[in-house]
Amino acid sequence: MTPQAATPAYRRLSVEERRRQLLDTALSLFAHRAPEDVSLDDVAEAAGVSRPLVYRYFPGGKQQLYEASLGSAAEELRECFDEPREGPLLPRLSRALDRYLAFVDEHDAGFSALLQGGSVVETSRTTAIVDGVRRAAAEHIYRHLGVAEPGPRLRMTVRMWITAVEASSLIWLDEGKQPPVEELRDWLVEQFVAVLLVTAARDPQTAALGAVLSDSGRG
Amino acid sequence: MTPQAATPAYRRLSVEERRRQLLDTALSLFAHRAPEDVSLDDVAEAAGVSRPLVYRYFPGGKQQLYEASLGSAAEELRECFDEPREGPLLPRLSRALDRYLAFVDEHDAGFSALLQGGSVVETSRTTAIVDGVRRAAAEHIYRHLGVAEPGPRLRMTVRMWITAVEASSLIWLDEGKQPPVEELRDWLVEQFVAVLLVTAARDPQTAALGAVLSDSGRG
Repeated sequence: MTPQAATPAYRRLSVEERRRQLLDTALSLFAHRAPEDVSLDDVAEAAGVSRPLVYRYFPGGKQQLYEASLGSAAEELRECFDEPREGPLLPRLSRALDRYLAFVDEHDAGFSALLQGGSVVETSRTTAIVDGVRRAAAEHIYRHLGVAEPGPRLRMTVRMWITAVEASSLIWLDEGKQPPVEELRDWLVEQFVAVLLVTAARDPQTAALGAVLSDSGRG
Repeated sequence: MTPQAATPAYRRLSVEERRRQLLDTALSLFAHRAPEDVSLDDVAEAAGVSRPLVYRYFPGGKQQLYEASLGSAAEELRECFDEPREGPLLPRLSRALDRYLAFVDEHDAGFSALLQGGSVVETSRTTAIVDGVRRAAAEHIYRHLGVAEPGPRLRMTVRMWITAVEASSLIWLDEGKQPPVEELRDWLVEQFVAVLLVTAARDPQTAALGAVLSDSGRG
């Protein structure tokens, strides 16, 4: 019996389907373990294929699989930020945060490992992917605020809040997902308003948003 | 003429003095360039010694020198947080932030490279050093707030603010050190008060700090 025959029948998948399947399998492994704790054999086993088959699709091995998984997760995360520009502002932010926090919940260990840094799979490419997501989040916020050209003070405030949201997600995971996610979400929205109001006292562009922020209520 | 003789006379330094000199030289190079852009030859040249001499003190080469420099910088940064527990609270925070921002100003490129991640010299050891500094900053804040056992909401708020301060430092460097450092410092202090007040509405321990925060004025 060849090793090939020992593996329970490969489903006949197209090249694209197989690639997608391997990627989804890798992502689900990388989501719940540190990258150090996922081997190419784990991916092959979980996908029910041979190790050489994984290499055929990802000749760069684990590093390439990790970066492709990260790219795929980043795409998913950007979709969390998509929220119609309708209705009061803060409930829009709440809904986007709900989706973001559900993503964090689903990718817990991988999310922590990625953002805590110092991992062997971390490269300037993985950093660029993460930064791209941060930039996308900031762009969404400017659009929802109705600001076409955010000045330096508003930009700094928004980027600081985004970083604080990341930090809170890591701590939330660390603390066994406490406080309850709805409380964390409301708290983050309140911090968003608070830090913008602080900046409003120093920056006319941010001050002009005061009406948007207070009119929008909590829906 | 031997290469040794070609080098302008080594000053006679003790082992500890020489180690310190090489470390200081490395730190000043790593402070102003990304680690990728500093070679062992650069360190040897800047210190006026031979490359083998650097290896004698740091057999692990550039990685070891980088980690030792980082440890030394971390020590310096922890000292920035040292502030007597006397007088109103917010001016104490302002003074600690002044020293912290002066450190950021002095170590600009190295600080950015370190915190932006994805660098080849980044390991779990370098991450642990950086996390140690963050933890030290949080401990200082709890002590100044007079809180012996910070609960989860207060801890999360303080850690989020520390992360936001880091983010603001990176953006500040990125924006050519704008806004002026005094403005950034005051803005960070105001954000500290604002986010604690948001948490105070959800957490009795933080609410009990209300008096400390409002009594302390801006000195």
